[in-house]
Amino acid sequence: MKESNEHHVSIEDHGYGAWLGYPALPQGRLQEQYVKWCGAVSVTEADDTVQAALAEWSRGIEGMLAIRVQADHKLSSGNLRVAIGTFGGGNALIHSVFSEADIRKVEREGFAIRTSADHHCIAVGAASPAGVLYGVFHLLRLLGTLQEIEELDITLNPVNGLRMINHWDNFDGSVERGYAGRSFFYENNRFKGDMGRIRDYARLMSSTGINAIAINNVNVHALETLFISDYLPEVASIADIFRLYGIRLFLSVNFAGPMHEGEVGTADPLDPGVRSWWQRKAADIYQAIPDFGGFVVKADSENRPGPFTYGRDHADGANMLAEALEPYGGIVIWRCFVYNCKQDWRDRKTDRARAAYDHFKPLDGKFKDNVILQIKNGPMDFQVREPVSPLFGALERTNQVIEFQIAQEYTGQQRHVCYLVPQWKEVLEFNTYAKGEASPVKHIVDGSLWGNRYSGIAAVSNVGNDLNWTGHLLAQANLYGYGRLAWNPELSAEEIAGEWIALTFGKDPTIAAVISRILLDSWEIYESYTAPLGVGWMINPEHHYGPNVDGYEYSQWGTYHYADNHGIGVDRTVKSGTGYSSQYIGSNAARYDSLEECPDELLLFFHHVPYTHVLHSGKTVIQHIYDTHFAGAERAEELVTLWSSLQGNLREDLYVQVEERLKGQAAHAKEWRDQINTYFFRKSGIMDASQRIIY
Amino acid sequence: MKESNEHHVSIEDHGYGAWLGYPALPQGRLQEQYVKWCGAVSVTEADDTVQAALAEWSRGIEGMLAIRVQADHKLSSGNLRVAIGTFGGGNALIHSVFSEADIRKVEREGFAIRTSADHHCIAVGAASPAGVLYGVFHLLRLLGTLQEIEELDITLNPVNGLRMINHWDNFDGSVERGYAGRSFFYENNRFKGDMGRIRDYARLMSSTGINAIAINNVNVHALETLFISDYLPEVASIADIFRLYGIRLFLSVNFAGPMHEGEVGTADPLDPGVRSWWQRKAADIYQAIPDFGGFVVKADSENRPGPFTYGRDHADGANMLAEALEPYGGIVIWRCFVYNCKQDWRDRKTDRARAAYDHFKPLDGKFKDNVILQIKNGPMDFQVREPVSPLFGALERTNQVIEFQIAQEYTGQQRHVCYLVPQWKEVLEFNTYAKGEASPVKHIVDGSLWGNRYSGIAAVSNVGNDLNWTGHLLAQANLYGYGRLAWNPELSAEEIAGEWIALTFGKDPTIAAVISRILLDSWEIYESYTAPLGVGWMINPEHHYGPNVDGYEYSQWGTYHYADNHGIGVDRTVKSGTGYSSQYIGSNAARYDSLEECPDELLLFFHHVPYTHVLHSGKTVIQHIYDTHFAGAERAEELVTLWSSLQGNLREDLYVQVEERLKGQAAHAKEWRDQINTYFFRKSGIMDASQRIIY
Repeated sequence: MKESNEHHVSIEDHGYGAWLGYPALPQGRLQEQYVKWCGAVSVTEADDTVQAALAEWSRGIEGMLAIRVQADHKLSSGNLRVAIGTFGGGNALIHSVFSEADIRKVEREGFAIRTSADHHCIAVGAASPAGVLYGVFHLLRLLGTLQEIEELDITLNPVNGLRMINHWDNFDGSVERGYAGRSFFYENNRFKGDMGRIRDYARLMSSTGINAIAINNVNVHALETLFISDYLPEVASIADIFRLYGIRLFLSVNFAGPMHEGEVGTADPLDPGVRSWWQRKAADIYQAIPDFGGFVVKADSENRPGPFTYGRDHADGANMLAEALEPYGGIVIWRCFVYNCKQDWRDRKTDRARAAYDHFKPLDGKFKDNVILQIKNGPMDFQVREPVSPLFGALERTNQVIEFQIAQEYTGQQRHVCYLVPQWKEVLEFNTYAKGEASPVKHIVDGSLWGNRYSGIAAVSNVGNDLNWTGHLLAQANLYGYGRLAWNPELSAEEIAGEWIALTFGKDPTIAAVISRILLDSWEIYESYTAPLGVGWMINPEHHYGPNVDGYEYSQWGTYHYADNHGIGVDRTVKSGTGYSSQYIGSNAARYDSLEECPDELLLFFHHVPYTHVLHSGKTVIQHIYDTHFAGAERAEELVTLWSSLQGNLREDLYVQVEERLKGQAAHAKEWRDQINTYFFRKSGIMDASQRIIY
Repeated sequence: MKESNEHHVSIEDHGYGAWLGYPALPQGRLQEQYVKWCGAVSVTEADDTVQAALAEWSRGIEGMLAIRVQADHKLSSGNLRVAIGTFGGGNALIHSVFSEADIRKVEREGFAIRTSADHHCIAVGAASPAGVLYGVFHLLRLLGTLQEIEELDITLNPVNGLRMINHWDNFDGSVERGYAGRSFFYENNRFKGDMGRIRDYARLMSSTGINAIAINNVNVHALETLFISDYLPEVASIADIFRLYGIRLFLSVNFAGPMHEGEVGTADPLDPGVRSWWQRKAADIYQAIPDFGGFVVKADSENRPGPFTYGRDHADGANMLAEALEPYGGIVIWRCFVYNCKQDWRDRKTDRARAAYDHFKPLDGKFKDNVILQIKNGPMDFQVREPVSPLFGALERTNQVIEFQIAQEYTGQQRHVCYLVPQWKEVLEFNTYAKGEASPVKHIVDGSLWGNRYSGIAAVSNVGNDLNWTGHLLAQANLYGYGRLAWNPELSAEEIAGEWIALTFGKDPTIAAVISRILLDSWEIYESYTAPLGVGWMINPEHHYGPNVDGYEYSQWGTYHYADNHGIGVDRTVKSGTGYSSQYIGSNAARYDSLEECPDELLLFFHHVPYTHVLHSGKTVIQHIYDTHFAGAERAEELVTLWSSLQGNLREDLYVQVEERLKGQAAHAKEWRDQINTYFFRKSGIMDASQRIIY
């Protein structure tokens, strides 16, 4: 495996360097410009994070320009250089370049970059060491994507306060819903202590703007319960690395913790013994980790313990934990993934999609102000297509973050390519109408709509111990893209893809065109050969990979399609269905409730229709199923052809691994096509209008 | 747990004693008769097996009659007694009672029992110690079932030579398809050494007539491969116990064994190095276990290694092993469960049902005479309903045993009651027409039809480390019944049930009536609420428990029903289907091939028909499905009622465990009913004529 302090990408890299591999830039005008400006650096601060920024700068410059960066005190004042530092850090160049007015525009984690001909420097200034780091990563990205740097004048602040990654790593080394090998934090119920890899991970995350990482699974098992006690020293050693990169460490905790350790006979959040137990734990934690972020809690969800056991509500539970963390500035992130997972499939009244709203809407305003509710993007569970959760817009007086899933649990498990940034963008742009005409989700989760104290974005990690971090090399684009989008939701999916491709493979227009097309088409392709028209869940139970139309149809999980020989879909309308559509506001509610207005791609999520129902596209539902599945499998096959056009043009170690996965995807897409088409042909008896082979 | 040497069933027994629990007999004329005759015993032989018979006799008499058996030398010659011994064993009473003509009628494992007023004794004589043991168990059974013993004149020989149990126990302690806890042979890759339990197990098996047990799974993993080398001492210590009870120990072996131990670079059966490797192993084995039975082999089956790898056939493979065992009288039991388990579900030409016949019919006559082919009762895999394997009748010059599955893999996994003796009877009575009009399977497997050297019956065990051996107490009846049927296929399912009930619960007419009815109805009930009309396989993949109509429909396992909105079933006819029906002989082939003549219960196994097809019963297929499923779930519910009529009449420890399972079955039967009915209603769109609730 590549050593973490090895600077140059080697042929054995296999993608370990990811977007911080710093491939050498092509010779030419820009490269000469960069060499001219970047040969020397001015840093005056000893702060660990500023020093980490300096180290990254040196590594990047050496990789991209093949020059060694010099400290500037060896230079005469007329030489060009890059100056890096906080506004109050005593670097004279930073002080000279940025005025008080400039500094006022830069927020706690923001930065400014300005090329000053007068001062012969490019100054990267920030209010905090973390801001300095983000600024340096940004400047390196400008170089990696071949931007002009002679007239820079940039001020950037992150749009979202919390930009978080949730690991679902278990202490035994497994990763729940992990598709990139085992955990690099744990193995066999011990901390692996692979600090080199953890540091590289922190670099990668910080470079995209991530500032919070929860290192253990939200399903907290017996031994992980002890992370806040017996294992604090090991947890602290990871926090020490994260801190260098501006990342606060969070832990998922077991709500029943007080009982688990045998000290308190209950976990009732209103019990004084329980409250003081958590307060003592908080004191211990902050002793070990002064900047500890807080707790992530999955309570009363999928058989996890929670306040319901004691007749308390979620606000009681969350507030009790928040009280314990409050003195130290910690926060409680309380997940809203609460539903009845013991549903009877015969029961058509209970609707899992309603659950988060039904549980949490009545609690709006009852949470302490250091509690954040974490709400999944959709009402179900990270399907390839779902509507946006109606809880966004419903909570006016509650801190909230949106939860995405970078891990491709239901979107091909990193064996299929599925670039999810376009999906996330669509969700963030969704207008909730919660506060007038312009109330998109992005303004709820950035806190601006309601003026929340805390807000932001969280997502389930897709990384593991595989050499390339994400199993599928192209899945790195989701990891990168998530961080960038969390920093700035205004970035387009194309821009983000372009950055990632340039930083990973070098700036070559052919490579960029091919890979960008693969990425940008991939979600649509994956959707087209899997579950149709928003109905979801046609996958094998438990592991969730591969087609199985009835896999969840007779289950307890609230996940049904109700296909019969006439039609398919879930009636969630007000008049004849579960009434879920009424959880939306205004025209959204009306649109989803209406068979005529409901968008095609969500039709079967909201309506039960005959196979002969005609979509807005002009096709019947059944013909849409056949057509999209034939087309989807064909397009998956074309991805292989597209990729193979890059052979010889791309590093072989990167080329071959993606080729292998794309070939697997093409074969598996045919399996999806045939199973789905056969199922619906057998059920409906309706022939394909184009008379293609259905089994 | 009950000590194995504790004689009296106690309230804590929970079924551990099983049919050797020897409950006290009721006071009365017969009990007085037994006390009169059975107070003393005459045994002159020191042979371990004869002594085991004596010990069992004493245990039985003490349990049933509450008297201590005395050695007869303390008695005067006029007293009544039981005399036990081999014909050549020197017991004067045995010599006096049985003439040379009597002795000639008794075969190697047979026995004679005669009440002799002249000699004041009941004599149990046999040609071998094992025969003595079987005779004693038989006499105990006569007492336990309250038969007159004053005029006994019985000569019984086992009908089948090999009466075998196959364990699918793994060295790690798991039991493949085990539903009664973990293995009592192994745990955590070591021999448990629980010799008390193994001895009790041997007693139970011997009492039913079992004379061969293979102690490890046919899927032989890495460490089990070493059972024939490194672990021989531990294996021998089990064989030592089995030997006391007339049972020969067999081992399942890994065909790739020679490669596994790294001594030989191939497992090619024609390779001299391989042949001598196996010969050396055989020598080692017989050194440790002089009466070792032989090998059980699953080769080229479900990814197990075999001769195909080397371009050899099954005869090459089996004969090579047989050659190694031949000098010691050992045999090779070669399983015929060979099929393509990587089938494409789109391929309707390949038919798994054909596979065993297609593979083995051409090899008839090519096997050495110490090879036995082990053929599963049906062509698929122990479904609740299958036709009889057409390989029975097709092999005229090959030793063969039939393989049943006592473990209820596909018949409720010992959570549902399913008394399988009626199913086995039906298979054994099936007329193959292989050699004229009267060629039932039972005369093929007993060797009489073709005059085979070896023949018999094998079955997969249903026992585990659960206190009651079989998880469901009523599943003990299958274990008991299997052995009894293997001894004598002429016994009826009713007789066997009656014996088991009396021996287990005591001779009470109410108990007998209720439990007998539960047992005898149970197969039909289970069949009625599960997969209909012989189609099979509507179960959850992998673990095989519970309904899942499409669970194996799009799989690689060759297990399809092809249900569409018009109809269902597998066309195995000659004209339009896979031609499987032609593997049968004469009128069987014609009957199965004919849509008109095919028996209802196998209709969907042989034919694809519309849901509106009218059965011989007069019902349509779809109405049959609805009716049987409603009735089946109702009858499962009635089993609870039936059983509860026994409360207070039955030992509480036995009553409660069965009640719990029957309640679980009743609930689960409803799940079966609703899922199956809903699936077919949704698919066919045809209403239930009785308008019952279908979801």
